[in-house]
Amino acid sequence: MMVSVLADRVKNLGGENAFLVAAEARKLTDAGRIVYPFHLGDFGCSEPENIQNACDLAHKEGKTGYCNKSGIEPLKEAVAEYSGKRRNLTITPDMVSITAGGKPVIAFTLLALMNPGDRVCYPNPGYPIYESWINYLGGVPVPYSYKETSDGFKIDLEQLVDSIDREKPKVVVINNYQNPTASVLSPEEMQAIADICIMNNAFVLSDEAYEEIRYDNTPFRSIASLPGMQERTMILFSFSKTWAMTGERVGAGIGPKPEGPQSVIGHLNELNVNVYSCVNQSAQWAALEAITGNQDGARNILARLKASRDATYGALSNLRDVGVVVHLPPSTFYQWADVTEPMRRMGIADYDAFWKKVLSDTGVAFCPRSHFGKPLPGEERKYARFSFSGITPEDSVKGIEKLGEYLRRF
Amino acid sequence: MMVSVLADRVKNLGGENAFLVAAEARKLTDAGRIVYPFHLGDFGCSEPENIQNACDLAHKEGKTGYCNKSGIEPLKEAVAEYSGKRRNLTITPDMVSITAGGKPVIAFTLLALMNPGDRVCYPNPGYPIYESWINYLGGVPVPYSYKETSDGFKIDLEQLVDSIDREKPKVVVINNYQNPTASVLSPEEMQAIADICIMNNAFVLSDEAYEEIRYDNTPFRSIASLPGMQERTMILFSFSKTWAMTGERVGAGIGPKPEGPQSVIGHLNELNVNVYSCVNQSAQWAALEAITGNQDGARNILARLKASRDATYGALSNLRDVGVVVHLPPSTFYQWADVTEPMRRMGIADYDAFWKKVLSDTGVAFCPRSHFGKPLPGEERKYARFSFSGITPEDSVKGIEKLGEYLRRF
Repeated sequence: MMVSVLADRVKNLGGENAFLVAAEARKLTDAGRIVYPFHLGDFGCSEPENIQNACDLAHKEGKTGYCNKSGIEPLKEAVAEYSGKRRNLTITPDMVSITAGGKPVIAFTLLALMNPGDRVCYPNPGYPIYESWINYLGGVPVPYSYKETSDGFKIDLEQLVDSIDREKPKVVVINNYQNPTASVLSPEEMQAIADICIMNNAFVLSDEAYEEIRYDNTPFRSIASLPGMQERTMILFSFSKTWAMTGERVGAGIGPKPEGPQSVIGHLNELNVNVYSCVNQSAQWAALEAITGNQDGARNILARLKASRDATYGALSNLRDVGVVVHLPPSTFYQWADVTEPMRRMGIADYDAFWKKVLSDTGVAFCPRSHFGKPLPGEERKYARFSFSGITPEDSVKGIEKLGEYLRRF
Repeated sequence: MMVSVLADRVKNLGGENAFLVAAEARKLTDAGRIVYPFHLGDFGCSEPENIQNACDLAHKEGKTGYCNKSGIEPLKEAVAEYSGKRRNLTITPDMVSITAGGKPVIAFTLLALMNPGDRVCYPNPGYPIYESWINYLGGVPVPYSYKETSDGFKIDLEQLVDSIDREKPKVVVINNYQNPTASVLSPEEMQAIADICIMNNAFVLSDEAYEEIRYDNTPFRSIASLPGMQERTMILFSFSKTWAMTGERVGAGIGPKPEGPQSVIGHLNELNVNVYSCVNQSAQWAALEAITGNQDGARNILARLKASRDATYGALSNLRDVGVVVHLPPSTFYQWADVTEPMRRMGIADYDAFWKKVLSDTGVAFCPRSHFGKPLPGEERKYARFSFSGITPEDSVKGIEKLGEYLRRF
């Protein structure tokens, strides 16, 4: 018997369905089946040894107690220096709030800024947690999308600019190096977004979790670096991707300089203390080693990802005969594949039926487009995300070849 | 320039002022002063070595990735078995949600149950985070209090029962082994609270963080064990106190069996994934060792606490001549001291002025009553909390003797 009626907001919370696919995949592996794990944004390798050792040393040095709600001072200093230098910005430690992974920056920034009824622009397809929090907090989700071009996915700039102009959102979520499309903003697109945000006094939540996961020679760019933007931008910084530290749960919010008793970054600190007191202390010392220590680990991670990207892209390109369309992802560890034709061949219109049947019949686990926000009205093409961070190039090719053989049977 | 106006809720969030005292205390130590740290609920010792080693081993075994939103399965099983056995209840792993310390259970349970305007009963003086979340979520805080008796602090049962009957709260927060009064519920008091909650269909959030920090021979008791209570109680379980793991941030919510797609424990899991994905994985393996491994560490921690308690109580008892009144704390690591007379002697009525002046003049750092909720109308006596978990018996005596000499000057 359920004694208590749940709060109204409960029904509005979304989730991360990649974990659903993971649960189904685990059932298969438990039953002795081979699974090709293209579903989760996690790594097939451990975090670098020097980072593990720093965590171990912190324990041995007795650093096992609570620490400051905003994070240990040396880590805040390191994040400020590292991220400031890369963005050509002056960032001071009081502009940094260490959080339990980058993810809390989404919830905490929206809690700091959004009243019920406020509009928030966010990418769709995109990381599902944006939409989840906007709905949970009683906001009005205003999605913007991406367009497929011969050269990959480009932000629908016209749609975004029009939305901001018309809807006057309180917050605009930008995810350059985008999950799931791997889209990278051009300098011109970034400037246009900055202009329209400034003109409409919108605050920007810039999710830069994939800042180091880039495969071409274009320089790293952050919207916070553009004139007039730092004072209205919260940067989501993550240790998870660059240093394969997903399980450590360390990230940071980097926001405008706090000048009054209340500020967005100050509210992040207060939510840290109200939700979980502080971030795991030894993991913070590990993060300090990650950012200031030997970078061979990060370089190896990127090299591994590049090899898996090339293999995954190559293998999926070979599925052109069954209608799979892919573009080489310039960033992130996701291949956003057009699977309209494979779904048509299989006679399946429903995304959930699609991933479940393919997983069950072939062991190939991936996330369909519907896991990245509610499909938008008028959306005609069907997509799926193949994550290549947790799979070797060899296994990627094997899995995708198996998928091709399977699709050819329809 | 602050670009964006913060959300209305921001002004309603409280905090944990023990961290303010910590910041002031740090300034003194940085200036070379001796500080007697009675302010923070943290330990002067590291977590036991076997627990540290388990964390290290998890890293070496490559357990550095994401895990299930509800926690790693072996830990959920261990928490279910351990906590079920101690409460004479059947607890299954699906009733357990591993959280980043026990603290998220407060926020997440209230998020799951409270609509704006809902009433919540909670202890005041009490852990300030209850009041903070009730206000933040737009609820109506209904405080209940404790009465000083010749034998220590007793819950004001009449007040609590009347409040529940009159206010029909959605949630009642119970903190047996109470921070800051160290009060322990008698079986009769516990039954009376259970009866009135059942009669008024109130859900109970039972903060049992200090379950193992007991110094007398009365058995551990949980309100969830009483008939009709398990189905309406969320237990806040913490690794922080029993095993001195404060910096690891591992705890759990243990709730009614989920029987529909939506349940309080299910919502805790969803909030885990929406706020921080999952709890630091290596810390979860460390917690598994804590609960299933050698318990010498926990026994040593309790023995150390008992020695500090005896020293602190003894030394404060010697300040009777300046009007300090104390009772031997039967649980927790807090000495709730009546400081009405010392404040009168010093000519200070304001709590903040009091702790700041004493800290600055003597190095004795403690938290005043005002850090444990807004003082209630009609409250005549003044109190302060001396935490003895982070101080040796010798230093405790030294600090309190210094405090005594200081107070005698007024």
